[in-house]
Amino acid sequence: MKEIVSETKLRIPFFDLDPMNVVWHGNYVKYMEIARCDFFRSIKYTYDDMHSDGIMYPIAKMDFKFIKSAKFEDEITIKCILKELEPALIFRYEIYTNGEKIFVGNTMQIGVNIKTGESIFEAPGRLKESLRNK
Amino acid sequence: MKEIVSETKLRIPFFDLDPMNVVWHGNYVKYMEIARCDFFRSIKYTYDDMHSDGIMYPIAKMDFKFIKSAKFEDEITIKCILKELEPALIFRYEIYTNGEKIFVGNTMQIGVNIKTGESIFEAPGRLKESLRNK
Amino acid sequence: MKEIVSETKLRIPFFDLDPMNVVWHGNYVKYMEIARCDFFRSIKYTYDDMHSDGIMYPIAKMDFKFIKSAKFEDEITIKCILKELEPALIFRYEIYTNGEKIFVGNTMQIGVNIKTGESIFEAPGRLKESLRNK
Amino acid sequence: MKEIVSETKLRIPFFDLDPMNVVWHGNYVKYMEIARCDFFRSIKYTYDDMHSDGIMYPIAKMDFKFIKSAKFEDEITIKCILKELEPALIFRYEIYTNGEKIFVGNTMQIGVNIKTGESIFEAPGRLKESLRNK
Repeated sequence: MKEIVSETKLRIPFFDLDPMNVVWHGNYVKYMEIARCDFFRSIKYTYDDMHSDGIMYPIAKMDFKFIKSAKFEDEITIKCILKELEPALIFRYEIYTNGEKIFVGNTMQIGVNIKTGESIFEAPGRLKESLRNK
Repeated sequence: MKEIVSETKLRIPFFDLDPMNVVWHGNYVKYMEIARCDFFRSIKYTYDDMHSDGIMYPIAKMDFKFIKSAKFEDEITIKCILKELEPALIFRYEIYTNGEKIFVGNTMQIGVNIKTGESIFEAPGRLKESLRNK
Repeated sequence: MKEIVSETKLRIPFFDLDPMNVVWHGNYVKYMEIARCDFFRSIKYTYDDMHSDGIMYPIAKMDFKFIKSAKFEDEITIKCILKELEPALIFRYEIYTNGEKIFVGNTMQIGVNIKTGESIFEAPGRLKESLRNK
Repeated sequence: MKEIVSETKLRIPFFDLDPMNVVWHGNYVKYMEIARCDFFRSIKYTYDDMHSDGIMYPIAKMDFKFIKSAKFEDEITIKCILKELEPALIFRYEIYTNGEKIFVGNTMQIGVNIKTGESIFEAPGRLKESLRNK
């Protein structure tokens, strides 16, 4: 599989800061999710497509490495890279401020049949096609 | 209608603080919601009851007055007072630290028929009964 | 004073949704803050300027009216309108989806001397100038 | 080092839910932080002690494994276990609902000299003593 990457730009809002005047670490989960949703938008596979394919992709595992702090009104760039599609969705996230890497994270999502709750290890055909056409 | 009041105690968590080292103002919406859910629990009218009564109560209006800041690990007490039941649910919220009032807020919630989306101006019978039995 | 307005565009993120599949009401405080920060950026009066002017502007009062719900990936436009500068900062916020007004809110902020904690009812000269030059 | 454990009980609030009617995954970072702060309170080493010791402990790494979802008003128990004190603080977190493990996480925090920004690999004497006395 060729690596598919999306890029999201974001300005750090005030309410994400903590008493040390830097982004509270838990907020990076939000940045990752925004980037992942942008990834799906970029390949034109929407949340509604996922729903009508009868699958959802809850997060099964995540990990984070904090290299440097982001600050108020910093413009960050989040690279979201699809690493594996099957048996589970694996994304890698890299966050940059002014070209400097400040954060690295990973998520693993396991497909679940919306109706039966059973795990699904094969990606929906429409998702695969969206990735091929990208 | 006699005034029915519930009380909720809460310790301010670190992630609710902002760079001024006080609770970020938007977090008070959460404290109000926690107190309101406790109110319903105290009268034994549950979220599931509401759902099976076919009604939901989205917030239509809110207002807030900030008197003093709450700080990390402050133990706050939230009084939640039912002011009106019909045609709309009106709650008043007062937050105290060490007996001192630091915040006052109000919410108005209008009943909505879950199926049709129409407004409901009469409270469910079961909710009225729960209040009478309190 | 002529009315000064800024406009902010935002796409609703997934993590702002609640079990009804609409934006949880408390998240509007964030949208208002993002818009207010954009307002200050648009007049080129920065957070650092505010700090070096020795003043901060905590929220003293807020109110909200919810007209219609915002949904996942809705593109909302937040108009932030400065209504009064002295003795207190009063902003009005209007949120639109596809040209339809879905939310109205107001905030009142009272200036506080960072060092002494005393209230300040006159806006900093530099802030007034920034507004005149807009 | 003997293993030191603290336990925190928490009721899942409504605003932590997502459209699937379960806790949005990012909120577990908050539960971990609440548990970690409780851990420090249980050994009587406060945030102020940390500050007067001239050290802060930002999160350098975190990882999460989601086993089962938590739901509205679930009472969860968070076990917070100190695994290593030096050269870095390592905590393990286990979350239970009705005795069933639903989540496992880990954090690594590296001490930083508040004044110089330099890394500190030795824990403050007062923290060590608090742990011995526990």
